[in-house]
Amino acid sequence: MKTYFECFPCYVQQALRAARLFTDDPKIIKNLIDEVGMLFPKITFDMTSPEIGEFIYGRMREISGVNDPYKNLKKQSTDEALDLVPFCRKLLTESADPLFMAIKLAIAGNMIDFAIHHEVDIRAEIESIVHKELTINDYDSFRKRLEISETILYIGDNAGESVFDRLLIEQLHDKKIYFGVRGTPVINDVVEEDAMQAGIDKVAEIVSSGSPVPGTILSKCNKEFVELFQTANIIISKGQGNYEGLSDEEREIFFLLRIKCEVIAGHIGVPIRSLVLMRSDLR
Amino acid sequence: MKTYFECFPCYVQQALRAARLFTDDPKIIKNLIDEVGMLFPKITFDMTSPEIGEFIYGRMREISGVNDPYKNLKKQSTDEALDLVPFCRKLLTESADPLFMAIKLAIAGNMIDFAIHHEVDIRAEIESIVHKELTINDYDSFRKRLEISETILYIGDNAGESVFDRLLIEQLHDKKIYFGVRGTPVINDVVEEDAMQAGIDKVAEIVSSGSPVPGTILSKCNKEFVELFQTANIIISKGQGNYEGLSDEEREIFFLLRIKCEVIAGHIGVPIRSLVLMRSDLR
Repeated sequence: MKTYFECFPCYVQQALRAARLFTDDPKIIKNLIDEVGMLFPKITFDMTSPEIGEFIYGRMREISGVNDPYKNLKKQSTDEALDLVPFCRKLLTESADPLFMAIKLAIAGNMIDFAIHHEVDIRAEIESIVHKELTINDYDSFRKRLEISETILYIGDNAGESVFDRLLIEQLHDKKIYFGVRGTPVINDVVEEDAMQAGIDKVAEIVSSGSPVPGTILSKCNKEFVELFQTANIIISKGQGNYEGLSDEEREIFFLLRIKCEVIAGHIGVPIRSLVLMRSDLR
Repeated sequence: MKTYFECFPCYVQQALRAARLFTDDPKIIKNLIDEVGMLFPKITFDMTSPEIGEFIYGRMREISGVNDPYKNLKKQSTDEALDLVPFCRKLLTESADPLFMAIKLAIAGNMIDFAIHHEVDIRAEIESIVHKELTINDYDSFRKRLEISETILYIGDNAGESVFDRLLIEQLHDKKIYFGVRGTPVINDVVEEDAMQAGIDKVAEIVSSGSPVPGTILSKCNKEFVELFQTANIIISKGQGNYEGLSDEEREIFFLLRIKCEVIAGHIGVPIRSLVLMRSDLR
């Protein structure tokens, strides 16, 4: 999925938000915003948003000298998510279809990046999402594919969210599961350390995509990850950043996400805030 | 009121919105967005947002060769507002305090610029606002000042909105009223022609501020307007753009506006969407 005009204001917004995490020096913030502005002419429409993100957060790392400015926030959101595990396990136990419930919880977890910037109550959000319908629901197809599959590549999105991913992975019994994380800290995206904190290592093999962008763009991933991507029986891709990078890939992918921006809503053809479990090749 | 960091994404958003009004050529839109991005380093924090608006809409005029790209939209919103006049007059007749009701209607009218981009039902909006409290309410002070005043400079904001301004002006009996309009078409701000369509000429003397910015910055206004600003007994300033340009002026001003962005909400210290009648020197 390529950059849209509507993404440009958002790039500036993201730079501002990120800069404020590591400094309150107006000169440094202004410089980063200026750099993003001056980058505009170099952004072409064959680029994806995660690539622009790579520049923004790369520059931020250079300017701040801090490798992972979101580290504390990520730890905090994982802690908050871990606190909700007993509540979620209860929902799973009481559910007539725990797999589907776990999918809903994994989608609910996908609003964690939104939550850290907007003071959202995650528990309330989960309670509400559990009763909502999925706007795109390819669950039947997913379940059937699961029956005949042995290997799954589950591509994580945000730290904290991975706690809910773990609950879903626990429902994918007797499969060999690889959990893809970013190769470099970028925004609050999950890296190996965050996945470990979420306990993913107990239920899957954590693999680094090598990606330095807030999403998955295969040309930016390492060889091992690309091979896994090509050979895994099922791909589960969480969140918008991965969708933006992978939506044009030809192989079948199950996208699991909450729609958080108008651009992606328009691209998929659903309203904003929709909950989506979508098999890519059915559309 | 100076530029805030949060204004930068908004400049890009505004450029995009404006460009789309006169073209669907992606190259032209991209060029305008790029120009706004490259302008960032030149924006300093002693500039106000309306000054940046002057650049954006000035460039848009140059690129499009169209002097008033919002002309049709403005006419349309004035027509819509005129259709609501009988309904508003009924509200005024039935009100125990028609002056205060007219103030509320004038504030309601201040969301017209928002409405044209967000498909808001103006009539529903008016009905709702009529029952709401003003978050800042210096009505007593306004009424007292009115009793001892002879001349009023009423600074208009958006086309369409002026229809509601007219209803308020009709309640300011036996005063000499000047209605300030922009000197150059900029966004959907009211110029002389729009004010005439709203019937302002029947209740006030229309004066051009000479301002080419979407707001009122005295250093950008003509001598006659500045003189009026200095000598009028009462100044009524409508909307955010005028507030941004005039909030640091020392003389007493009655600001009448609906709060439409977080930056101005923070500057005044009220929640977004607040309705405000504020005497500047009381705060």
